[in-house]
Amino acid sequence: MLSPLFSLDHFRAQLAQAPGVDSEAETAAAERNAQLTKPPGSLGRLEDLAIWYASWRGAARPMITAPQVIIFAGNHGVVQQGVSAFPGEVTSQMVANFQNGGAAINQLSKMAGARLDVHSIELDRPTQDFTQDAAMTEEELLSALQIGWNSVDPEADLVVVGEMGIGNTTPAAALACALFGGDAGEWTGRGTGVDDAGLAIKTRVVAEGVAKHGPHINDGLEALRRLGGREIAAMAGAMVAARMMRIPLILDGFICCAAAACLARLDPNSLDHAVAGHQSAEGAHAALLKHLGKPPFLTLDLRLGEGSGAALAIQILRGAVACHSGMATFAEAGVSDG
Amino acid sequence: MLSPLFSLDHFRAQLAQAPGVDSEAETAAAERNAQLTKPPGSLGRLEDLAIWYASWRGAARPMITAPQVIIFAGNHGVVQQGVSAFPGEVTSQMVANFQNGGAAINQLSKMAGARLDVHSIELDRPTQDFTQDAAMTEEELLSALQIGWNSVDPEADLVVVGEMGIGNTTPAAALACALFGGDAGEWTGRGTGVDDAGLAIKTRVVAEGVAKHGPHINDGLEALRRLGGREIAAMAGAMVAARMMRIPLILDGFICCAAAACLARLDPNSLDHAVAGHQSAEGAHAALLKHLGKPPFLTLDLRLGEGSGAALAIQILRGAVACHSGMATFAEAGVSDG
Repeated sequence: MLSPLFSLDHFRAQLAQAPGVDSEAETAAAERNAQLTKPPGSLGRLEDLAIWYASWRGAARPMITAPQVIIFAGNHGVVQQGVSAFPGEVTSQMVANFQNGGAAINQLSKMAGARLDVHSIELDRPTQDFTQDAAMTEEELLSALQIGWNSVDPEADLVVVGEMGIGNTTPAAALACALFGGDAGEWTGRGTGVDDAGLAIKTRVVAEGVAKHGPHINDGLEALRRLGGREIAAMAGAMVAARMMRIPLILDGFICCAAAACLARLDPNSLDHAVAGHQSAEGAHAALLKHLGKPPFLTLDLRLGEGSGAALAIQILRGAVACHSGMATFAEAGVSDG
Repeated sequence: MLSPLFSLDHFRAQLAQAPGVDSEAETAAAERNAQLTKPPGSLGRLEDLAIWYASWRGAARPMITAPQVIIFAGNHGVVQQGVSAFPGEVTSQMVANFQNGGAAINQLSKMAGARLDVHSIELDRPTQDFTQDAAMTEEELLSALQIGWNSVDPEADLVVVGEMGIGNTTPAAALACALFGGDAGEWTGRGTGVDDAGLAIKTRVVAEGVAKHGPHINDGLEALRRLGGREIAAMAGAMVAARMMRIPLILDGFICCAAAACLARLDPNSLDHAVAGHQSAEGAHAALLKHLGKPPFLTLDLRLGEGSGAALAIQILRGAVACHSGMATFAEAGVSDG
């Protein structure tokens, strides 16, 4: 188990001393890959994924047997501005749906044999509307980070973090805009499906938030505090916790990647233990992935959140690792190697 | 069980009277999809895939529980021209590897919970070198089609057909070139990894084959007979058998799609029960998928064959169907629908 977080500076310090890959396992996995019964390179990205996974798990021949999907739910003050196609109470209704097994992520987690945990974070206390004030106080941010920090099962061998929070593509767009620059319009999309009028409001809200808070943002955590949300902060906390335990991570969609972007600002190597599961249909996700330097491995026009795209991607990564660790070598199989 | 094939004309006649989708199930599945607890369209391509699958299975709420992966292996006379990076004996060595569980497709089939069947087709009797003569006689073609025709388990609810055959990107390129036109160079790629000199030989061989046989090709089966191979013909037979039993099919890479292209020439609707699992790194596969009108759902730079990309794609399709059939509706979950 990880020790608790004492302060935001403690979180920063933990990230600064986070472990890296096991180079010996990486070399051994690359050597094994070269001997497997297939033409060199013919498993394409699966080969890179398997070697990457092996390097983080410290094993030349790993398997994925204990994936964990963690969903965080939070509510957002900006919803009062009319930025979502759904009312705020849907957040808690969907949490109940997760608990009853009725959502997409339940089906996808079950299919992946993944443990699914759901954390509701003060749904009756939305964050401040960031056009008026910072979304969270330092205490609120620390508390949300801590929930994520504690949520990762040390026995997990792969983690997906997902979210539910009506309105949360708005803080995600504001974070991306504040961290990477550009116009609010470039980062603002239709989320769950707002119409043109809704999109215009949303773009204005993002622009106002970035104008108000941008000048005060000196690092990723301050961005998260001013423009983020509780579930977004918890995702960031879980991502770093996974890193501390060398548990590989699959990133999900736009909101998940906005949380990741805050960490990337804190430390450009903070996401070395992460791959992008998919590119979502939310307009600016492709740009966000490019800024993070993470090419997606699925592009299926998903835009649901809940960790759904990443949960689906578990099977691709598991397939990569299963081939790597289960295949015979040319010598073992008596196959001529060209 | 399907009745045996009596002749090539019998095969053509079977395809001409193949069943289509169940429109009632299709409508019911589309109605169900609209009521599930997610923003409309937010599962992207998964929604279309689930409805398509339901329409072929004749059930509004199907599950995928019995996928079957079938690999056909054959040898090719054109290998003597130096078109492959591997010697011809690797075909039978890899068949042994499949039987011993050591290949990529073994790991991927196991992960998908799929039955895996391997059919070696006269490996000690390669097809004729198509630069000299037609690859097969009519009897040989019928016999290979029949092997595929018989191979599909009537209890399967999803089929993947894969192949192993050293040199078989050469007949596949020749088939694509003969069926869709263009220069041999556009259709010829590096296969298992030939160098520039090998690629030049391969391109010349494809051009010679198409020049020799093209003028005599009046339909898809004649293309298959003159330029194809036993495993390619068997794949085509299995594809039509699956269609006769309304079992959905996931297409694999370049060689699988060359077999499919022969069927598409026989009847443009012959592959309505098929989706493209992935786009391979073999240069012309993207073009072949475009001609077939099948957008891939994975692009992972695979170029292994064996049905590997399609087997990986089973999990995507299964996830689509699991969401469709397992999710709660807005009414069931008490979630406000916007």
